[in-house]
Amino acid sequence: MNLYSGKMNKLVEELSSLPGIGSKSAGRLADYLIRQPSQRVKALCDSILDARENVHFCRICYTLTDSDICPICSNESRDRSTIMVVEDTRDLAAYEKTGKYNGVYHVLQGAISPMMGVGPADIRLKELMTRLQSDDIKEVIIATNSSLEGETTAMYISKLIKPTGIKVTRIASGVPVGGDLENIDEITLLRALEGRISL
Amino acid sequence: MNLYSGKMNKLVEELSSLPGIGSKSAGRLADYLIRQPSQRVKALCDSILDARENVHFCRICYTLTDSDICPICSNESRDRSTIMVVEDTRDLAAYEKTGKYNGVYHVLQGAISPMMGVGPADIRLKELMTRLQSDDIKEVIIATNSSLEGETTAMYISKLIKPTGIKVTRIASGVPVGGDLENIDEITLLRALEGRISL
Repeated sequence: MNLYSGKMNKLVEELSSLPGIGSKSAGRLADYLIRQPSQRVKALCDSILDARENVHFCRICYTLTDSDICPICSNESRDRSTIMVVEDTRDLAAYEKTGKYNGVYHVLQGAISPMMGVGPADIRLKELMTRLQSDDIKEVIIATNSSLEGETTAMYISKLIKPTGIKVTRIASGVPVGGDLENIDEITLLRALEGRISL
Repeated sequence: MNLYSGKMNKLVEELSSLPGIGSKSAGRLADYLIRQPSQRVKALCDSILDARENVHFCRICYTLTDSDICPICSNESRDRSTIMVVEDTRDLAAYEKTGKYNGVYHVLQGAISPMMGVGPADIRLKELMTRLQSDDIKEVIIATNSSLEGETTAMYISKLIKPTGIKVTRIASGVPVGGDLENIDEITLLRALEGRISL
């Protein structure tokens, strides 16, 4: 339906095909964009195209970067004997924001999901195993999501690594800090109980 | 903080400056965009730039269009004696979607809001009054939002138009279709009571 004009319609359609943006948000965004200074809109588009053309995977950890090796992998002060395994670059970013993790990462670029047809060969697992062979790794911390796919992936990886003798750990699952017990689901409560630590 | 690489960081920053997009959605969008085929990303950017350069206000009703006069104003079969006054093009689109309104529109491009420093001179009110003088208008339907700003604008416009003798109406305010009375706020319930119609 031609609710807007031709070019507005086209823009709204393009925007609403993006993930998490429905037709209403797309309308609001389109409206916003055409009211911005030309220069600002051009900067946004340049930034999109530039990232699309020049961002690729780090040759070591497979996070997204525009250099051959990402800033974390090329940072001499990071502890290369500890690898945190995450599903994607956004999870890496979440842990980097804490500022307290000094090891390196391995970004799987996905999680094993039989439902979605994603098997172990579809994520960067072979690359992780290769890293474990060549480097002097002391610990692999599995920080995949606490979802069905994340847990499946964690189990799979730990079984794969155990024979190598390298220490494998999993980040704790439990009540989030500041969380009210009464608002937490039962599975999380049971996890928190199982994972209790002595004080 | 350099959570992503330079170009990813820049893209996430650009995206999170858009309305309704926080840093997390921006991260997800950036991640999505750099995985799309080059051609698709280019089409999105072309569409943004094209709309930004070529979409402007309709010379008659001030909706957004890429022609001099919008498809609705130039449509001979629309009833030009009835003007629906809306705040923006998205509101026009919402009424067009019903497919039942055959009159024309006037898009104010805003609403009077003393709080935000938007006065009657900042919206397309003068242009509406000019239209009322020159055309053979029978009715003006005020369809501004049911917010404080929308109501203020509706009152202001109706006072302005009344002396001209043209019929001024306001769209009904009440319980939305499918709405459960128990979930509706009190002001709406009172409005629905005040606006009751005989059966």
